[in-house]
Amino acid sequence: MARKRSNRNRRGSHRDSVVVIGLGRFGRSLALELVDEDTEVLGIDESPEVVQSLSGSLTHTVRADSTKEDALRQLAVHEFDRAVVAIGSDLEASILTASLLISFGIENVWAKATSEAHGRILTQLGVQHVVFPEHDMGQRVAHLVRGGMLDYIEFEDDFAMVKTTPPPDVLDIPLSASAVRTRYGITVVAIKRPGEGFSYATPDTVVKADDTLIVAGRTRATERFSELR
Amino acid sequence: MARKRSNRNRRGSHRDSVVVIGLGRFGRSLALELVDEDTEVLGIDESPEVVQSLSGSLTHTVRADSTKEDALRQLAVHEFDRAVVAIGSDLEASILTASLLISFGIENVWAKATSEAHGRILTQLGVQHVVFPEHDMGQRVAHLVRGGMLDYIEFEDDFAMVKTTPPPDVLDIPLSASAVRTRYGITVVAIKRPGEGFSYATPDTVVKADDTLIVAGRTRATERFSELR
Amino acid sequence: MARKRSNRNRRGSHRDSVVVIGLGRFGRSLALELVDEDTEVLGIDESPEVVQSLSGSLTHTVRADSTKEDALRQLAVHEFDRAVVAIGSDLEASILTASLLISFGIENVWAKATSEAHGRILTQLGVQHVVFPEHDMGQRVAHLVRGGMLDYIEFEDDFAMVKTTPPPDVLDIPLSASAVRTRYGITVVAIKRPGEGFSYATPDTVVKADDTLIVAGRTRATERFSELR
Amino acid sequence: MARKRSNRNRRGSHRDSVVVIGLGRFGRSLALELVDEDTEVLGIDESPEVVQSLSGSLTHTVRADSTKEDALRQLAVHEFDRAVVAIGSDLEASILTASLLISFGIENVWAKATSEAHGRILTQLGVQHVVFPEHDMGQRVAHLVRGGMLDYIEFEDDFAMVKTTPPPDVLDIPLSASAVRTRYGITVVAIKRPGEGFSYATPDTVVKADDTLIVAGRTRATERFSELR
Amino acid sequence: MARKRSNRNRRGSHRDSVVVIGLGRFGRSLALELVDEDTEVLGIDESPEVVQSLSGSLTHTVRADSTKEDALRQLAVHEFDRAVVAIGSDLEASILTASLLISFGIENVWAKATSEAHGRILTQLGVQHVVFPEHDMGQRVAHLVRGGMLDYIEFEDDFAMVKTTPPPDVLDIPLSASAVRTRYGITVVAIKRPGEGFSYATPDTVVKADDTLIVAGRTRATERFSELR
Amino acid sequence: MARKRSNRNRRGSHRDSVVVIGLGRFGRSLALELVDEDTEVLGIDESPEVVQSLSGSLTHTVRADSTKEDALRQLAVHEFDRAVVAIGSDLEASILTASLLISFGIENVWAKATSEAHGRILTQLGVQHVVFPEHDMGQRVAHLVRGGMLDYIEFEDDFAMVKTTPPPDVLDIPLSASAVRTRYGITVVAIKRPGEGFSYATPDTVVKADDTLIVAGRTRATERFSELR
Amino acid sequence: MARKRSNRNRRGSHRDSVVVIGLGRFGRSLALELVDEDTEVLGIDESPEVVQSLSGSLTHTVRADSTKEDALRQLAVHEFDRAVVAIGSDLEASILTASLLISFGIENVWAKATSEAHGRILTQLGVQHVVFPEHDMGQRVAHLVRGGMLDYIEFEDDFAMVKTTPPPDVLDIPLSASAVRTRYGITVVAIKRPGEGFSYATPDTVVKADDTLIVAGRTRATERFSELR
Amino acid sequence: MARKRSNRNRRGSHRDSVVVIGLGRFGRSLALELVDEDTEVLGIDESPEVVQSLSGSLTHTVRADSTKEDALRQLAVHEFDRAVVAIGSDLEASILTASLLISFGIENVWAKATSEAHGRILTQLGVQHVVFPEHDMGQRVAHLVRGGMLDYIEFEDDFAMVKTTPPPDVLDIPLSASAVRTRYGITVVAIKRPGEGFSYATPDTVVKADDTLIVAGRTRATERFSELR
Repeated sequence: MARKRSNRNRRGSHRDSVVVIGLGRFGRSLALELVDEDTEVLGIDESPEVVQSLSGSLTHTVRADSTKEDALRQLAVHEFDRAVVAIGSDLEASILTASLLISFGIENVWAKATSEAHGRILTQLGVQHVVFPEHDMGQRVAHLVRGGMLDYIEFEDDFAMVKTTPPPDVLDIPLSASAVRTRYGITVVAIKRPGEGFSYATPDTVVKADDTLIVAGRTRATERFSELR
Repeated sequence: MARKRSNRNRRGSHRDSVVVIGLGRFGRSLALELVDEDTEVLGIDESPEVVQSLSGSLTHTVRADSTKEDALRQLAVHEFDRAVVAIGSDLEASILTASLLISFGIENVWAKATSEAHGRILTQLGVQHVVFPEHDMGQRVAHLVRGGMLDYIEFEDDFAMVKTTPPPDVLDIPLSASAVRTRYGITVVAIKRPGEGFSYATPDTVVKADDTLIVAGRTRATERFSELR
Repeated sequence: MARKRSNRNRRGSHRDSVVVIGLGRFGRSLALELVDEDTEVLGIDESPEVVQSLSGSLTHTVRADSTKEDALRQLAVHEFDRAVVAIGSDLEASILTASLLISFGIENVWAKATSEAHGRILTQLGVQHVVFPEHDMGQRVAHLVRGGMLDYIEFEDDFAMVKTTPPPDVLDIPLSASAVRTRYGITVVAIKRPGEGFSYATPDTVVKADDTLIVAGRTRATERFSELR
Repeated sequence: MARKRSNRNRRGSHRDSVVVIGLGRFGRSLALELVDEDTEVLGIDESPEVVQSLSGSLTHTVRADSTKEDALRQLAVHEFDRAVVAIGSDLEASILTASLLISFGIENVWAKATSEAHGRILTQLGVQHVVFPEHDMGQRVAHLVRGGMLDYIEFEDDFAMVKTTPPPDVLDIPLSASAVRTRYGITVVAIKRPGEGFSYATPDTVVKADDTLIVAGRTRATERFSELR
Repeated sequence: MARKRSNRNRRGSHRDSVVVIGLGRFGRSLALELVDEDTEVLGIDESPEVVQSLSGSLTHTVRADSTKEDALRQLAVHEFDRAVVAIGSDLEASILTASLLISFGIENVWAKATSEAHGRILTQLGVQHVVFPEHDMGQRVAHLVRGGMLDYIEFEDDFAMVKTTPPPDVLDIPLSASAVRTRYGITVVAIKRPGEGFSYATPDTVVKADDTLIVAGRTRATERFSELR
Repeated sequence: MARKRSNRNRRGSHRDSVVVIGLGRFGRSLALELVDEDTEVLGIDESPEVVQSLSGSLTHTVRADSTKEDALRQLAVHEFDRAVVAIGSDLEASILTASLLISFGIENVWAKATSEAHGRILTQLGVQHVVFPEHDMGQRVAHLVRGGMLDYIEFEDDFAMVKTTPPPDVLDIPLSASAVRTRYGITVVAIKRPGEGFSYATPDTVVKADDTLIVAGRTRATERFSELR
Repeated sequence: MARKRSNRNRRGSHRDSVVVIGLGRFGRSLALELVDEDTEVLGIDESPEVVQSLSGSLTHTVRADSTKEDALRQLAVHEFDRAVVAIGSDLEASILTASLLISFGIENVWAKATSEAHGRILTQLGVQHVVFPEHDMGQRVAHLVRGGMLDYIEFEDDFAMVKTTPPPDVLDIPLSASAVRTRYGITVVAIKRPGEGFSYATPDTVVKADDTLIVAGRTRATERFSELR
Repeated sequence: MARKRSNRNRRGSHRDSVVVIGLGRFGRSLALELVDEDTEVLGIDESPEVVQSLSGSLTHTVRADSTKEDALRQLAVHEFDRAVVAIGSDLEASILTASLLISFGIENVWAKATSEAHGRILTQLGVQHVVFPEHDMGQRVAHLVRGGMLDYIEFEDDFAMVKTTPPPDVLDIPLSASAVRTRYGITVVAIKRPGEGFSYATPDTVVKADDTLIVAGRTRATERFSELR
């Protein structure tokens, strides 16, 4: 397997190799994104159908029972230093697999949790990065449901970015003239003309009615700005 | 029920009312975030345990079978103009519920899809906003697994924001001096000192080794920047 | 497969090809009737037993999972312009299959519905012809249970045809003499002598006690006529 | 119960009473049609939900296990002379129920069969009228799928009625002039102008392009006529 | 198969051929007893294990689904004139199988019933001999539980045979002297000395304390006799 | 409960009390036969429906889990000296119950076995009387299937009784003249005229063509006699 | 509840309180032994039957779902400093419960493991004492199966105690004379005369043939000694 | 198979052969311990996975259904004189297997019981050695939970051995001086210095603070001694 050949090369070549265990919605999307970014991925799943459907898309795909130490060792999983446990619905399999990865001494383990208790157990086992996809997307979509914005992301510390259409009173004047930072407590980061990509906003940028803006600022400020009508 | 009382008020008061059907991980997190932002939420779920566990947290919570027209009408769901179908694992229930909401003529319906086929059916039924939490989070986490960044969000059109630690060669000099836009194709939007919140970056901002940066730019450019070491 | 060969011929030769998905009671009976009328039929079902039992009777029979786009494309289903979704008991499979056929742009899709909700969803997806076998047959049999008629069919707009035995007062005289149109509001369309086929009724036709009549008229009128004794 | 009260009246009052056992799609539709036609119906089903949903619509509805002799006798089912076994999916329950009705000596028993074997057993038990809804509707719909007709019914003996749009060469002339009986072997029974009901066709009737026709004749002849274009 | 070869011989050779369908406890015991008595038996069961375990013991054993007409015809079941349906626990399979045998016109069909309703249905289908093993053995064992007898059989019409030990007052005198017919209303049919077989009782037979008697008479009389102590 | 009252009476009154555990086909039939013969029966079953359906027919009926020592002791089962374990399909429950009865020291325990292994275990546990209803009835019915007899019972030791119609050569002459014992090795025990009960046969009895005979003898001899035609 | 009252007393009174979660074979036996030794026990199980059956035997017994933090807090489980997780067959429940106890900061947690993986996870979570009943008893019974000993226990470090009958050559002489320590490498710790308890062995103790000995020494030495014959 | 070869040797060579049926936690651990002690073991289990995972570790391992007499005889199980039934969770299989072993006349049968009723049945069947692993380990662990001891074993008759740390007042003086037998009613059997094995204690042994002691005595006395602090 390619993994072994890479091993023989210099250690540095491992930097982009990741093992992803569980190839459901989350794991599959994660693995494909990694491959898109030229990262080697070993994908493991219990289901032969799932493995076959991805066999042409990931660097390696293997059907294996990740709750068995022998199975993982045979695949040299213990030699990776980045692993993702993307098993979602089967709490027991998720915990057994994470426990093995931790016992292998793998440095960076990400694991998906489906409940607070699941998350706590993963942390107690020693998993460094626990993610809650359903929970986080729920929060994010809440802001889209609520306000006029097109997309939304909150970085921790009450600091958010939103994609939104411009309110009437900033149209057709330079950003410096509309004084959005003073009046709304936000800053316009980038602007997208119809048919073009995003470009950085400058004080001289003049906003048009059919532009799309990326705006940064405190969570509430960005919401209020995108609700102006 | 409070809903009816609100109805008697002027129409404008409905702007912040949302019905959320399905209170699993995603729906619960979405509903709680809405309530946090002072949006009235009617939460509906089939499970009495789930309904009870949220009864103190949402504006209204009701146990009902959302696949039955009678049940939804009794709850005046047809009078809302924003609804979220957050039913995940039961494809049939998701489709039956979305079909009813569309037949009610509700203006804005969001629905969670768990597969491409599910998403296509929701769109064919007439659902305006289809979201794929597992898929989207998989993509987002892929970037954290891959690179040195702390958080990541890609707005469509190849334009991303990342939270990252600063690379060595921008330290201890004003941002204007490090010329990150020229050299790395990115712009530093905000900066966070240890123990403080984020503040907007200006050309005069001097970055320190233990600061955290919010950086915007084309996807690859932000990644390369956060991998500098 | 024969389908492809036919494709190469002139477009007109497709007029009689139909794909029937789901070969239970309804689909099987429909498909066999089509073949009887010299229509080419591609029959698809998930069950190998069902497929085998019909393999000699339909033009083509294939075991396939019709909820998978790949499977349908491999069978060139997207090239048909008439398709029947005869899947009954599995709501989810029916919807997934119909959704795919609609996404293929097939012009005439018939689908069997087992409930009002099922019917509404099929219509929302874009299915042109939704049929309710159990419901329609229930209505039809009701008239047989109720009255003295032998068979019954109601065309919409309160206009029915019934097969019935003749009442005493029309016997042994020409139809013109019994004045059924005036007295009962019906018209006798055809008449069947024992051991013969049906022939059109004329004013001169003399009805005998052991004849069978086909009678047309408003629903109630036909019922009353067949209940005369 | 009302049944008993009717019993006390003269025997003749029973003529329109029917017991319908099994209130799924078929039985429900049959029972509602009977009630629509002023026939008293006692509806019996095992499911409390089904019984409740129909309690306002039928003369009497009772939850009972129709496979138990005691349950049927308590409802005086043995005193009816018309009964319908509309149980479909549970072969065993259908047979047990039909067996009891026959043992009661009920004169007219209709029963729905879902397979040939089911039909044969019902006949062997002594059931007088066995119906196959899925099978019959399949045949009927086949003709709609195949040709240009709008509705279709075949009375036995190769004699059918179809609802269809008129072919070009019968337009704008009296029926007597178009000689359809001679040229196509069919007879036009009735005609419907847009916005009106059906009326009987006469030799003088002039057919317009947007009329709908009811046509009778041998099966193939009616098909060919409706495919003329 | 041997069956067909026998067919070619003269018709009389079929006299001892029996088909036994269902090889559970009852059917197996029945079939083995027939073979013991030199009757040719075709044994049919759905379970390959059951069929294999009996393959050396019956004339022919075949695994087949007896509810399918094709399967039975392939085994020439329709050519037998004696058949036993020994299917017990699966009511549906028992009825489907019996229905087929009756439709074949087999002259003598025995079938095992597990309930009154089952028995009634079998009779309505046209089965000539319906047996109730559990019920009949329950009655027979009741007499053993109740009284001092060793075995018991009741022929209809209140006439029973019992195997019992002799009561004290018939010991050591000829049967003629003990006048059992007069005093107890029974007759001693046979007697068994320890270590010997049964022999017919005569008026001169002298009964010993360790003999076993076969006694005939009215049910109650035989019981009372066997309870004398 | 009545049981306790009876206990207070003299010991002798217990002679006819039996506890029957398991009221399926076999146990029910056994219990009802006992009650018919004026034996007090305590019937125990796990199913409330079964218990209720027999509550008017047995002396006492109780719903209880017979695998629990406490449950049995509360019903004073340990005070009976005759008990029947009529549990059939649940091997484990049969064994647990029998084990408890044996541990109570009950003198006479009958138990129904459904397989050889079941029978062996019951015997090893210490059960005195093990019966095999399905097996025994299978053997008995085999003889009816095979020959011309009407009923059949084999007492052990190759000695059987059969009910049969008389062969031609014994008709219309006294039994002494037909010499059946000499010629066929059997003895005629009783004879039944149409419309009468059985009466004992004597040497002077003249057999008529429509009589029914009870015949005793060695198994094969009785069979041969009933097959004479 | 008594627990709270005890809390109000001085801290030292808690020394003997233990919470036992899971009252199956292992937990029940453990809890009853603790109560026997005057230790207060709070027993928790999910099954109402289990809880009721022990309600008179433990200090407190409560039905609760131990995988829920709320449920445990309501029972003040977080205030105990000794807890036993005796949940065996449900891996997930065992892990969820142990995780909560560790998160409460309870000092001494024992947990039963049913596999190596289960044991490793419990240890990773932070459980101090993991026990393997089936595994340990398997080892212990192996020695009884193998040799002539009556009971066996191995303390770690190759040092075992066995209960055995004495070999012939130590009979009827003082232990000092038989020199078992020299000859067999073992020491006789205690001796039991028939009908008496154990007493310590001294050099003067004379062993009789029907005595039972407790012998200590290296594992193999004790085995060899007990196999002497 | 090796078993048969051994059979051909002299009878004495069988002394160390054991058949272990059921290779779950308990049976596996028992079987491996036997092999460790050079005992030949034939391991039998129903699961191919279990059998394969142990195939290199036991003398022989075979997949077989131990509830079938044929299967056991084919493996010559009836020729062993020591057998262990280590089937735990399947009561029925445990009983069927034990019943067969007893019917084979095997001299020494051990069986694991999971409840009192299970144990009673095994004893009634004739099993000589019934063990209760969960129950016994529960009792043993109770003592570790309760007190300060490190390990604990109670031989019947209120005589126990414990491994414990020494209490303060026996430190640094010879055992004879601390008079533990007089003061605490116990005797110190062995002592373990850090880094060494156990050695027998003598009156001259001086106990150090970091030693571990094996102490024997009446149950309560050993507990009290290990709780001294």
